[in-house]
Amino acid sequence: MSFELLTSSGYARRGTLTTKTSKIQTPVFMPVGTYGTVKGLTPDQLHDIGFEIILGNAFHLFQRPGLETIKKFSGLHKFMGWNKSILTDSGGFQIWSLKELRKISEEGVEFKSPLDGSKIFMSPEDSINTQLILNSDIVMAFDECTNYPSSLNEAEESMNLTHRWTKRSVDYFNKNKNGHLLFGIVQGGMHNELRLKSLEFMNSMKLDGIALGGLSVGETKEEKTKVLKFLAPHLQIDKPHYVMGIGTPEEIVEGVRYGIDMFDCVMPTRNARNGFLYTSKGILKIRNSEHKNSTKPIDENCDSYTNRNFSRAYLHHLDKCNEILASTLMSIHNLSYFYKLMSDIRKSLEENKFEEFLDSFYDMRSLNKPKI
Amino acid sequence: MSFELLTSSGYARRGTLTTKTSKIQTPVFMPVGTYGTVKGLTPDQLHDIGFEIILGNAFHLFQRPGLETIKKFSGLHKFMGWNKSILTDSGGFQIWSLKELRKISEEGVEFKSPLDGSKIFMSPEDSINTQLILNSDIVMAFDECTNYPSSLNEAEESMNLTHRWTKRSVDYFNKNKNGHLLFGIVQGGMHNELRLKSLEFMNSMKLDGIALGGLSVGETKEEKTKVLKFLAPHLQIDKPHYVMGIGTPEEIVEGVRYGIDMFDCVMPTRNARNGFLYTSKGILKIRNSEHKNSTKPIDENCDSYTNRNFSRAYLHHLDKCNEILASTLMSIHNLSYFYKLMSDIRKSLEENKFEEFLDSFYDMRSLNKPKI
Repeated sequence: MSFELLTSSGYARRGTLTTKTSKIQTPVFMPVGTYGTVKGLTPDQLHDIGFEIILGNAFHLFQRPGLETIKKFSGLHKFMGWNKSILTDSGGFQIWSLKELRKISEEGVEFKSPLDGSKIFMSPEDSINTQLILNSDIVMAFDECTNYPSSLNEAEESMNLTHRWTKRSVDYFNKNKNGHLLFGIVQGGMHNELRLKSLEFMNSMKLDGIALGGLSVGETKEEKTKVLKFLAPHLQIDKPHYVMGIGTPEEIVEGVRYGIDMFDCVMPTRNARNGFLYTSKGILKIRNSEHKNSTKPIDENCDSYTNRNFSRAYLHHLDKCNEILASTLMSIHNLSYFYKLMSDIRKSLEENKFEEFLDSFYDMRSLNKPKI
Repeated sequence: MSFELLTSSGYARRGTLTTKTSKIQTPVFMPVGTYGTVKGLTPDQLHDIGFEIILGNAFHLFQRPGLETIKKFSGLHKFMGWNKSILTDSGGFQIWSLKELRKISEEGVEFKSPLDGSKIFMSPEDSINTQLILNSDIVMAFDECTNYPSSLNEAEESMNLTHRWTKRSVDYFNKNKNGHLLFGIVQGGMHNELRLKSLEFMNSMKLDGIALGGLSVGETKEEKTKVLKFLAPHLQIDKPHYVMGIGTPEEIVEGVRYGIDMFDCVMPTRNARNGFLYTSKGILKIRNSEHKNSTKPIDENCDSYTNRNFSRAYLHHLDKCNEILASTLMSIHNLSYFYKLMSDIRKSLEENKFEEFLDSFYDMRSLNKPKI
């Protein structure tokens, strides 16, 4: 088994996930590297923060640089100079996001490339093939993300398509895998009965991990929590649990409480490029004029390279001048914040102090700890 | 004396320049950090390449972030997190470049800020004051760059203004300095007699170093060489010689042949952002489609971080996707190339093999070595 559970506290779990490339400590946050680069950081900078796994994206990398290029490097690791693990998104979510530019059929999805308007067809087999050529450590089954909101009927039809595509993904994967892991994606919209059905289907497929999809598509925080809460007791204990595209520090902390082991989100890097910095007390907006002359670091409680070496005034200045270094330094800071958050969570679980961690986490933000 | 001459070969010199902050090995290339950042690189990355001194710009930093901010940090070093030397441009050249937006008088220059249209006045005293607040290691006297082309009369008037401003710069500097060094800027356009007169004036001012200005303003390579060749025998041996805003690897090599110790230029970083990469065989254009699938490094003869870790195909891809990392990695490469060039020049001078270095430098590029 690739996943090992070390300890737990309620639903919250501390474990390790071993891929063909590296061993990952969970719960883990995975930075998003859509085009084979986590925006603004060198692989060395990612490594220095401590990350053990990043995301790539089959949809984007299929189009640029294309599989012919990737093949020359025997995969994404060597192409981008990253020697730890990579999880690739199947492309399902990105194609679904194209809305009127895509046409979904039983066979797969035809879409118009947002880059050059060319027509591209992607089937579950194509997606898995792409991810195997990328030599991804963790391959995601091809799914259809369920619209939000959607009626019980719509959500059920969409879920059933995802299940059929998952089966095809599994079949193609099993014939071609070589040390790779495959995760399936639970859909079902905001309907508990469908979510449970979908999870039971995924459990029956003997996958290496279970992902929860369709939980960053416009639903409210309450709806998201409702789904997590409902599914928590049904997640197989011996499998890693991944909630896709989430989230804020608060959402991650709550995710861990409901048994989630893996998270990914573009927010740390995207927010960095817009001057939103994560701190132990909440968000700091570096563009505010109050920071113009401030010699203070971003956060007294942070050990990031950015925080140790640069002031609010300097970051404010770089951002104002549209300097590349603004994006780099602030992305390093935000990713370091997320890394540290996960590291603190893991430590608290190891020491059987997760509840104390939660109390302190919410106290620092002057928020009430939600009931579980 | 801050400058120590170690050895020489013809006019070419190997020396050290000691500032209040650090000891610099010459001949040296100084990366340009206009707004308190060498575009795309962290100070650590600059340090790792080996750079001992970078440029700042009084004109730009005066406007953004402004002196009130810089004062909070007791200067630019702490503001930008750079603990080696800094040379600041006086702003004369940048204000001169504003053309119709500036009005020059005996007292100084009034100009319209390109940022917000506000009227700003800068005198020689203001410029030196700004540079001392920046706590620059090497302060440049305030000059008027001479137009190109310009008649003997125009060039002489302009030169005389520079001389009067230099005198005022020296007076203000001597009253306020604290371990800082001051360089004067030789003007005189393309007129040998004026150039000599200007150099003799600067020699008489007992400055810490001599800069040659007005040599990256549109003149031909031959005219530039003519000026360097003419001045070479008249440059004081015990002072460092700096030619401003230069240049290509070929220009730098020729500069060293004519006794120049210090160079700065935006080309390595600007060209990097446009996909032009320096190699031992000349320029490589990473945007060319031939590099799309190339697993080769940029240059077989380069030890840069970029070169050691990334392929042409990856850089081509990052550039195509407008990824920030493209600018960063290619800037690191180009700056590493310039650093290595200077390091090779210094080594050849130490080993009394500068002529062999030149032969090999021109051979690799299939160029004839110019006569001196």
